[in-house]
Amino acid sequence: MRAEIVGVGNELLLGFVDNTNASYLSRALAALGIETRGHTSVGDDLEEAAEVIRNALRRADIVLTTGGLGPTDDDLTREAAAEAVGRPLAEDEGLAEELQNRMRSRNRPFSWRVARQANLIRGAWPLNNAHGTAPGQYLFLDDEKRLLALLPGPAYELIPMVETHLLPVLSAFRRGPLFRTRTLKFFGIGEPALEETLLSMDGLHHLVSWAPYGKEAELHVCLRAGGGSEEEIQEKLGQAIEMISSRLGKVLFTVGDGNMEGAVADLLVQRRLTVGAAESCTGGLLAHRLTNVPGSSAYFRGGVTCYSGESKIEVVGVKPAILEEPGVLSAECAAALAEGARRIFRADLGVGITGLAGPGGGTPEIPSGTVFFAVDGPHGPVVERGYFPAARQVTKERTAQAALDLLRRYLLKSPV
Amino acid sequence: MRAEIVGVGNELLLGFVDNTNASYLSRALAALGIETRGHTSVGDDLEEAAEVIRNALRRADIVLTTGGLGPTDDDLTREAAAEAVGRPLAEDEGLAEELQNRMRSRNRPFSWRVARQANLIRGAWPLNNAHGTAPGQYLFLDDEKRLLALLPGPAYELIPMVETHLLPVLSAFRRGPLFRTRTLKFFGIGEPALEETLLSMDGLHHLVSWAPYGKEAELHVCLRAGGGSEEEIQEKLGQAIEMISSRLGKVLFTVGDGNMEGAVADLLVQRRLTVGAAESCTGGLLAHRLTNVPGSSAYFRGGVTCYSGESKIEVVGVKPAILEEPGVLSAECAAALAEGARRIFRADLGVGITGLAGPGGGTPEIPSGTVFFAVDGPHGPVVERGYFPAARQVTKERTAQAALDLLRRYLLKSPV
Repeated sequence: MRAEIVGVGNELLLGFVDNTNASYLSRALAALGIETRGHTSVGDDLEEAAEVIRNALRRADIVLTTGGLGPTDDDLTREAAAEAVGRPLAEDEGLAEELQNRMRSRNRPFSWRVARQANLIRGAWPLNNAHGTAPGQYLFLDDEKRLLALLPGPAYELIPMVETHLLPVLSAFRRGPLFRTRTLKFFGIGEPALEETLLSMDGLHHLVSWAPYGKEAELHVCLRAGGGSEEEIQEKLGQAIEMISSRLGKVLFTVGDGNMEGAVADLLVQRRLTVGAAESCTGGLLAHRLTNVPGSSAYFRGGVTCYSGESKIEVVGVKPAILEEPGVLSAECAAALAEGARRIFRADLGVGITGLAGPGGGTPEIPSGTVFFAVDGPHGPVVERGYFPAARQVTKERTAQAALDLLRRYLLKSPV
Repeated sequence: MRAEIVGVGNELLLGFVDNTNASYLSRALAALGIETRGHTSVGDDLEEAAEVIRNALRRADIVLTTGGLGPTDDDLTREAAAEAVGRPLAEDEGLAEELQNRMRSRNRPFSWRVARQANLIRGAWPLNNAHGTAPGQYLFLDDEKRLLALLPGPAYELIPMVETHLLPVLSAFRRGPLFRTRTLKFFGIGEPALEETLLSMDGLHHLVSWAPYGKEAELHVCLRAGGGSEEEIQEKLGQAIEMISSRLGKVLFTVGDGNMEGAVADLLVQRRLTVGAAESCTGGLLAHRLTNVPGSSAYFRGGVTCYSGESKIEVVGVKPAILEEPGVLSAECAAALAEGARRIFRADLGVGITGLAGPGGGTPEIPSGTVFFAVDGPHGPVVERGYFPAARQVTKERTAQAALDLLRRYLLKSPV
């Protein structure tokens, strides 16, 4: 089964936004065993959008469009799709009433612009939008051989709509040989070393094929298994993951959709431990990432972004002497921040980060991009030094990632 | 003049990487006054890639491909492009020698795989790759009426190649009427209200056309002016921006490439003021965003992520009585956090944020997604309440954005 994804919107062609919807949908389709064979972006132009949708429907079994469902004049995807499939648009009374209620409850006017969003292509079913006004819709074509779905552009509207409403439809629609993918996420190993290790594992390539790809500071490996029933495929994937994690367990931090902060969160919850943080150069990013995990208030006690020398001393309680010698860019300072974070937040563990995100400000001994990060806890303090010369935000991201990984490794040593 | 961009690579269709090259190239083309009318991504498949390139060349004056120029078997873009234009590929001796030298200097073997990268389509000119082995190439077609360029996939190879070698070629090739774009960024106004205001402005549509698009919690409007010389177009854009900012100055926070934290940073620097923060539900995101701005240590004194009740009292100094009544989810608590942040970081201004990012934990009076944010400073405290029911991270983002905007409006009241 072939899918194509069509993004509609001048903002895509002007380069103002990256088409992250296309990547998200491709991953969601792959997880169902449906292969995406094309992404196209087209502007807010009725004829061009209709042509692109028509061509995609010629090649693909499933066509998903994103964007252009809103109330403004340049939202033309409904009209373009209707033209592409040669069917009329008509107002759906139920949708119109829902939109009216929605507008009323928010004290907003129900204009004809808003009303346009209640239009469905003949034969289409609506997809509820829990986070915006524009509903999506899907319809079967050519004796149910093809599926066309129109989805909203904003990711926070699109993703819940897909997860809740579209995936069940796609899952039922899927035909052809089954395959499944699973992503393993590594940190602290390079692509050549990983590739060599995987190639050296007897029998791994009989179970799965794999494709490694770097993503920010992480290395992800997509395993793919096919040939057989759902159960047999899952068995192959399970065996492959078992083989890989027994060899690379220390650098493998997640199997599946999770991320580093989620892996750390799981370990904290399992071990019933709490953590606090004192960050300098990462500027709150570590706290931000840890608190992105739902339920993080159970283990994250708090963090300080101590961006000034005074705040390191007065808020975190770092001894002034440390800031004199060896100075703020030192392993000692990172350890003192970790210890201070643990103390002021009354947490089981403390993370401390200091360094120079740049641009500028470095010395030959400590160039811009040098960072020190520490964990303090029941097993005493550990400190590591990193060198991540890059754009300011990239240095922040790599440092936060390395500090989270240090915390992860520290937690692995703690009893459950 | 119409351009299209074709991305080649299974990693795009599997959703492993976002097609940021397409956005980058579209922005670079727009800066030259060349309009991108389509982005397409296709897999590592010779026939499909050739077909996509052929179709793009039918519609567009300029076609840029990205990816698939490397040494491995799935790098097929040269072959696909040669097939699309019906010309043979042949080894370029100069390129082959350069590649040999490059490999020798790095002690790597010069295999036939590497050698493939020295192949040029007949009539093509090479584009030097300063950061990788695969050279790019470009050629004119149809009596120099069309231009096809093949560019590498990794952004760190592509961007320098484009800036140094391709832009001069494109600039000389560009024909037809000039146009220029400028982006205005708004916060605190909805798309329908903005659209209505713009439509109501006498004469605005004679100067520019515009396209609004939502980006996270912000509303961006891309103005486009054409018809005339560079000077005349800049004059039109200037007049349009003047008209819009005189009507919508309060909600217009940036003209051009900047962002909200940059706008706040500029105001802080101009007014020589410092700021500290105490965040609960945003978990450090406000501090992270403010410290993303280079030079932020000049005005950002520090922040606390006070995720526990204890840390609000012990680290930020919130009075325990406030946490009893009216409680942590209150305007009073936000104001106390702002006051505390100002005090403990010895800053001119303090920002305080409290709220419920969810999921769960709400009450009928204070549902999940309710937030309170405050600024304390020389003009006394101001507090606002927001309701951003959404996925946890989206609630965090909108809250941080709203708090930054409150800080921005507070700063606008302070004398320069």
